[in-house]
Amino acid sequence: MAGPTLLFASNIDDPAPWQALFARERPDVTFRVFPDIGDPAEITHALVWRIPDGVLASLPNLKAVFSLGAGIDQIIRDPAFPRATPLFRLVDGGLREQMTEYALYGVLHWHRNMGRYAEQQARGEWHMLEAIHPSQRTVGVMGLGVFGSDIAAKLVMLGFNVVGWSRTAKEIAGVESFVGEAGLDAFLARSEILVNILPLTDETRGILGAKLFERLPGAGALVHLGRGGHLVEADLVAALDAGRLDWAMLDVFPTEPLPAESPLWAHPRVFVTPHIAAQPVSAAAESAIIGNFNRFERGEEPPGRVDLAVGY
Amino acid sequence: MAGPTLLFASNIDDPAPWQALFARERPDVTFRVFPDIGDPAEITHALVWRIPDGVLASLPNLKAVFSLGAGIDQIIRDPAFPRATPLFRLVDGGLREQMTEYALYGVLHWHRNMGRYAEQQARGEWHMLEAIHPSQRTVGVMGLGVFGSDIAAKLVMLGFNVVGWSRTAKEIAGVESFVGEAGLDAFLARSEILVNILPLTDETRGILGAKLFERLPGAGALVHLGRGGHLVEADLVAALDAGRLDWAMLDVFPTEPLPAESPLWAHPRVFVTPHIAAQPVSAAAESAIIGNFNRFERGEEPPGRVDLAVGY
Repeated sequence: MAGPTLLFASNIDDPAPWQALFARERPDVTFRVFPDIGDPAEITHALVWRIPDGVLASLPNLKAVFSLGAGIDQIIRDPAFPRATPLFRLVDGGLREQMTEYALYGVLHWHRNMGRYAEQQARGEWHMLEAIHPSQRTVGVMGLGVFGSDIAAKLVMLGFNVVGWSRTAKEIAGVESFVGEAGLDAFLARSEILVNILPLTDETRGILGAKLFERLPGAGALVHLGRGGHLVEADLVAALDAGRLDWAMLDVFPTEPLPAESPLWAHPRVFVTPHIAAQPVSAAAESAIIGNFNRFERGEEPPGRVDLAVGY
Repeated sequence: MAGPTLLFASNIDDPAPWQALFARERPDVTFRVFPDIGDPAEITHALVWRIPDGVLASLPNLKAVFSLGAGIDQIIRDPAFPRATPLFRLVDGGLREQMTEYALYGVLHWHRNMGRYAEQQARGEWHMLEAIHPSQRTVGVMGLGVFGSDIAAKLVMLGFNVVGWSRTAKEIAGVESFVGEAGLDAFLARSEILVNILPLTDETRGILGAKLFERLPGAGALVHLGRGGHLVEADLVAALDAGRLDWAMLDVFPTEPLPAESPLWAHPRVFVTPHIAAQPVSAAAESAIIGNFNRFERGEEPPGRVDLAVGY
């Protein structure tokens, strides 16, 4: 049998830099770009963002699937996904620093009234707004995995009060941790600024909806860099219009690109970004993917193995 | 002689919270608000942002002057300032965290293309811009005192390359340090984003001018939260219009409030904020001021003693 054959498939990523990377680092690997699969029996590895349902199941010799990003729900929602095949998400690759940058930016933007100062500038108005010291502000981080725990730790270093919520208990210095459904109400009641970085699972789908917004302290902010399926768009607009929320910064949406008819585009209290919180095509992502590929080939366990029983 | 008598003088701060603070914490202190000085011979301490030239010199029993902010140039520019009287600037009081928040916000805004994403949102445009990992970005911090060294350390923690410039050599983990006039060119040549938090002295007045902008790598950003006297407004506008600089976030100006006729108000590549980077009227500032007053009264040396020979 020939050497490894990698199938690349993404609806958003340019295959060229990845192909060049493998040609340079692993010239023994045959690189195929979906939909030009060739002989399905030759495919041994897949590097995937999104691929049509059933394709992965049709590859009889597939040994491993690597996600091009941190999310994997877009892969495992395929009912035919071969659940016995090891699936790895990108756990670092420069994503962590970018996620933290995005979250801190959103928190600081609202905490320091930057939107209102920009409005004042447009009117030529010089007026100091009330400042709140970070020690008097509480930020809630929903999701305390690799990304959420880094965001929480950096917020602590900036002097904020930080509360965290996760499925299982986590210990992060300076972060008051709440766990599971039983801890959610108390967590939300404290979160003046809510940062969502949960994975998408059956339990978290639609979590950013009316029921959650009602339990926040009111007139605060949402920074959403989790997954599109968390967000109930109509409920968010209603919460903003009712003053339950003052502002939202959103990077991911139920449908992407965000449809032209979405009220979020022109909402004065919403900052829409086009799924850019973490952009994995970078030197760090490339070295993480190649490193994981090589580790798997040597029989070692790369980081980011997905547990399909919990869904992330 | 009666107990201590404090003279409060500011052109921007409301005396009421300070009066209430002293009434609560030091009821033995007589609190006078300029211009109602009463008998000048009774004044023993001054708590000042700005006071007309010559007033402090007219107080024969003045023992100490406390600045209401981190800056003191607005006090010592009085030619009659009693130079033998100890002068203390506010070194913490919650200012540090706020300064760092402001600087990080400005750095992240430009580093992550947030201005361009806001423009895209206004056009309903979904388009991912190139991301640069913080390890590939160099931020220069000009001024490495209490504030600048905290800003530099936090930028290091976020993964940026950080270079620093100061009058005397400073050791900050992860920060490449440049010193004095001899080190300025090399420092500026590295600073894709320049953060200015220098004190205002004869040496630094007008430092943000054409000569400096020409020595930057080009098409980068300026985050200016130092002192108004650092900035040569016309040179900044010229640098922006020539593309020497791509963007500037400015909190302090040669004349404040920024005059209505300033071209900075409507410049598309300038974010004007009304001297809000650090707002000392807060619980932390109050406790710092009272703490320093009490320390001085007990004969101890409060932090923030100004060295008039170097000017900060």
